[in-house]
Amino acid sequence: MILTLAGGVGGAKLAQGLYQVLGSELTVVVNSGDDFEHLGLSISPDLDTVMYTLAGLNNRETGWGLAGETWNFMAMTERLGGETWFRLGDKDLAVHVERTRRLAAGETLAAITISMCARLGLSCAVLPMSNGRVRTMVGTDQGELAFQEYFVRRHCEPRVRELRFTGADAAAMTPEFAAAWDGSDLKALVLAPSNPFLSIAPILALPGVEARLRARRVPAVAVSPIVGGKAVKGPAAKILRELGHEVSALAVARQYQGLIDGFVLDREDAALAFQAEALGMQVLVTDTIMRDPESATVLARQVLEFAEGLR
Amino acid sequence: MILTLAGGVGGAKLAQGLYQVLGSELTVVVNSGDDFEHLGLSISPDLDTVMYTLAGLNNRETGWGLAGETWNFMAMTERLGGETWFRLGDKDLAVHVERTRRLAAGETLAAITISMCARLGLSCAVLPMSNGRVRTMVGTDQGELAFQEYFVRRHCEPRVRELRFTGADAAAMTPEFAAAWDGSDLKALVLAPSNPFLSIAPILALPGVEARLRARRVPAVAVSPIVGGKAVKGPAAKILRELGHEVSALAVARQYQGLIDGFVLDREDAALAFQAEALGMQVLVTDTIMRDPESATVLARQVLEFAEGLR
Repeated sequence: MILTLAGGVGGAKLAQGLYQVLGSELTVVVNSGDDFEHLGLSISPDLDTVMYTLAGLNNRETGWGLAGETWNFMAMTERLGGETWFRLGDKDLAVHVERTRRLAAGETLAAITISMCARLGLSCAVLPMSNGRVRTMVGTDQGELAFQEYFVRRHCEPRVRELRFTGADAAAMTPEFAAAWDGSDLKALVLAPSNPFLSIAPILALPGVEARLRARRVPAVAVSPIVGGKAVKGPAAKILRELGHEVSALAVARQYQGLIDGFVLDREDAALAFQAEALGMQVLVTDTIMRDPESATVLARQVLEFAEGLR
Repeated sequence: MILTLAGGVGGAKLAQGLYQVLGSELTVVVNSGDDFEHLGLSISPDLDTVMYTLAGLNNRETGWGLAGETWNFMAMTERLGGETWFRLGDKDLAVHVERTRRLAAGETLAAITISMCARLGLSCAVLPMSNGRVRTMVGTDQGELAFQEYFVRRHCEPRVRELRFTGADAAAMTPEFAAAWDGSDLKALVLAPSNPFLSIAPILALPGVEARLRARRVPAVAVSPIVGGKAVKGPAAKILRELGHEVSALAVARQYQGLIDGFVLDREDAALAFQAEALGMQVLVTDTIMRDPESATVLARQVLEFAEGLR
């Protein structure tokens, strides 16, 4: 069993590669700090991105949402004067309506996700990090913003000063997450190439998770989401800069110092390998850009072999 | 000002004709006993049918829902194992989501409906009968069923024994409904060709409405929804039979005895005119089948002239 911690798009790509290699031997635990309530619906953007990607339903052009999506709900909402800054496709909406209904009926987010993944034909486990309510709040030069307000409505334009994961103190790992971690069949932990501050940090902020990672009994490896001083996708580079870090894969390695045994760098950043190794981790240099499911599978195999060699 | 009481499809057709003739001089008060909560959404089927029809957005083939509708939400809901017996189109869904959100935010059903109608370009008022919760319950040979369970899920198949309008005792007319009735500019009341038991009766069941109608100071006319012993649309004939009435326009006239001054019969039922008149109402015999908006407008003009002559 391989346990992967992931956020949205970048994490979903590597998770898809791992799924191709591992099938049911994979558990993906997804950040739920980006979750929010909108139009009365409970929306879990990262969870849905991973679920859609692993099910092969994701829209590869946009990087979010479903392929072949239609927008008639959104057009009618606009006509009625409703809020349209967060785009909800007609198919995508079914997931939010069904999830909202089932949460209201008392089911956990994990149980609902497991059931939906089964319905979509997935054989691996995709889980939210917690059934509790954790909300990423972005402290900016324009005040504190709920994550989706910052990310989607304000297009990441405000300058980030700090990040808070409200509710994380009181939220527990989902029982399935803890069980996967504690399972005797766990072989390695993989931190996907997701934003370390926005996607991985909320998972590590749950009580006990960082301590578990420090006390790990299996190898942990991370794949850098920063390549050549730029984020492959999303605001990771901008946030690194605004929080006072250098914008490089090395800054990511520093975030994970003591938490991982191996770090995967892109060939473009090969010159950083020595400095990363000085942080107490082994380094794999390879092609990390996942242009399609095939290259994600190639990377996944390399990451798994790398982790295997660290045991 | 003309005040019309209406249910779904048949009522919406005459309301559309009246709207063509009267424009902003029309107020349509719609049954909300068919309203229900489904998939966590507040759905008002009759209100939406009237709103869509007056806005020219209705689907004329199906008799419900929106023209040019798509069904991707429903298909994805089915894939996720959700409930699909009540068909919700992608555009239609925007109305339910927006209404549910605004109800949760404390707006009244009337205020939301008025706002939506304005957004859809309507110049007349379309109002729910009440902001309170009234639910039509159908007592059948298979037990008591919520209205949409009977009507949509069970296709009106169970045998009806009685109808209850739960909550009607404690529900008030919407203030806008009462104001239209009390306005010095009110010229006539029109009971649309809707199901007398399922669409008009819930409105009459609100405290004071039937008493107002008995004490009316302007003419009230009704259009028969039964033509030639058959319902033009829906289960009216079946329900008349199961409740022990003869299946004819005359049975409708008897339901309204003392409440109306004039009754509009289809030419096919001309032979019933004498018996209807014996109930203390004047009778107009004309073509009442509304095949298109034009024939609805012709009928509306005749109904208005008929009412005018009764003053």
